[in-house]
Amino acid sequence: MSTTRVTSVAIIGVGLIGGSAAATWRRAGCVDRLIGAGRGRANLERALELGLIDEIAESPADAAARSDLVLLAVPVGATAAVLADIAPALGNRTIVTDAGSTKTGVVADARRILGRAAARFVPGHPVAGTEYSGADAAFAALFENRRVILTPDTETDPAAVSTVRGLWEAAGAQVCEMTPEHHDAVLAATSHLPHVLAYQLVDTLAGLDEQQEIFDYAAGGFADFTRIASSSPAMWSDIVQANRDCLLPVIDRYLAELNTLRQALADNDRDAVNRRFERAKAVRDRFVDNRTGRT
Amino acid sequence: MSTTRVTSVAIIGVGLIGGSAAATWRRAGCVDRLIGAGRGRANLERALELGLIDEIAESPADAAARSDLVLLAVPVGATAAVLADIAPALGNRTIVTDAGSTKTGVVADARRILGRAAARFVPGHPVAGTEYSGADAAFAALFENRRVILTPDTETDPAAVSTVRGLWEAAGAQVCEMTPEHHDAVLAATSHLPHVLAYQLVDTLAGLDEQQEIFDYAAGGFADFTRIASSSPAMWSDIVQANRDCLLPVIDRYLAELNTLRQALADNDRDAVNRRFERAKAVRDRFVDNRTGRT
Repeated sequence: MSTTRVTSVAIIGVGLIGGSAAATWRRAGCVDRLIGAGRGRANLERALELGLIDEIAESPADAAARSDLVLLAVPVGATAAVLADIAPALGNRTIVTDAGSTKTGVVADARRILGRAAARFVPGHPVAGTEYSGADAAFAALFENRRVILTPDTETDPAAVSTVRGLWEAAGAQVCEMTPEHHDAVLAATSHLPHVLAYQLVDTLAGLDEQQEIFDYAAGGFADFTRIASSSPAMWSDIVQANRDCLLPVIDRYLAELNTLRQALADNDRDAVNRRFERAKAVRDRFVDNRTGRT
Repeated sequence: MSTTRVTSVAIIGVGLIGGSAAATWRRAGCVDRLIGAGRGRANLERALELGLIDEIAESPADAAARSDLVLLAVPVGATAAVLADIAPALGNRTIVTDAGSTKTGVVADARRILGRAAARFVPGHPVAGTEYSGADAAFAALFENRRVILTPDTETDPAAVSTVRGLWEAAGAQVCEMTPEHHDAVLAATSHLPHVLAYQLVDTLAGLDEQQEIFDYAAGGFADFTRIASSSPAMWSDIVQANRDCLLPVIDRYLAELNTLRQALADNDRDAVNRRFERAKAVRDRFVDNRTGRT
């Protein structure tokens, strides 16, 4: 298997995702030079100190002008503005890709803002993360055995798709392709809904009397269950807003079904409650534990 | 600090909790002889094979008759039946304690069934667990740095409370006391509600089209978030049923607040969504991560 190589890569947003991509591509020998850009100067300096990037560019446009490939690893809500910044600076062969958690809006933005250069925009989503943020949270193994979903269309340059695919495969990820619409529907259910539920749980508990005590007696599973509620609020406000057309229907479905479960409990319908718990455990054990290799 | 010592302990239900208690008390040198009893013969034989117990009793009553202390580690719904089984066999000084996740109902059962012996019943709840069940899941470190909540009342023999406290402290736990009612209200929020939400999430996703694919693209946090939905359905049906008077109001509150969040999202009220996420993260980082020592 030949390794994908790109001489110079611009990372716009050197946080958990951008920094980890930089680290893994450097380790895999895919990239000669990594140029970082973004809003937080202190974070960029930290990324330089950690050796994630080789230099800090003056601006996203400056980084893009000197790169063969640009990775946008910014909150999805900032994608359009960054695309507008870098558009005039892109070379004729520069590939642009992103790491946003929603795809339909990003694809529309790219088409609108990049014009003909949109053919070399490869929409992507590495389905990986932790609850931590910033360059300090980055690590090269983040994408190993994780999925990366690309959502190119018939107008996307196949060579650009191939390069982006090669980079993520070099990071140890399993790369697949689907439409942006399908991506957004699937992720609304598996990622965006759980984040909403976890944030809301912590917020509800925080509103109860004796807040401190409530958390003192949280059981072993509580830290795991609420871990995603420590994810970046700015990033997640962006994501749920960007994907609300897909997210609202699954929230509604969840609300309706939770209400049904609540009613079964109120009615003392032990069988209905137990059946639901049994079904959930069977599905989770089959799909989730199998996949992650837990025993 | 002197170590609490009990010559012979009966463990009724040698699963995750009962088996782990047996393992930790043996390791700490608190107990000379551990007698197991329960419904699943194969599980008891496995517990014997693993060295968690020294022998298998014919019945819970047989185990109780030959012990100085009895730990009930059965689903809360089975507690009354087991108390009725062992009541005639209890010696004049035998201490009985339990590990049930709800306390008000257990306390009422003990008072009704044990009569005068109820004074030596010390209601307890080790707030610890994993999503696994059975003797194979047991391990001696399960209770280290975990809370154990005891809910004795003014009629409970102080010496019995002291012995039970000593055993849990020897297991590495932090022991505290509160009323059964307060226990049930706190645990409804921090433990029972999260389990309901996690079971319901997996069940909702399982009901969507393309079930397999949905779980294929589950993100990194999903396995953590849904881990508690792999807990024993029988045990958890019991718990939510036993504590439904406390649980229903917090489910209702959660439903109402999730609905408000949903509405903010539908109304494009980005600030309201972000404020809620920010508040949740701040609370979780402060109370949960601090407590578990994560960085």
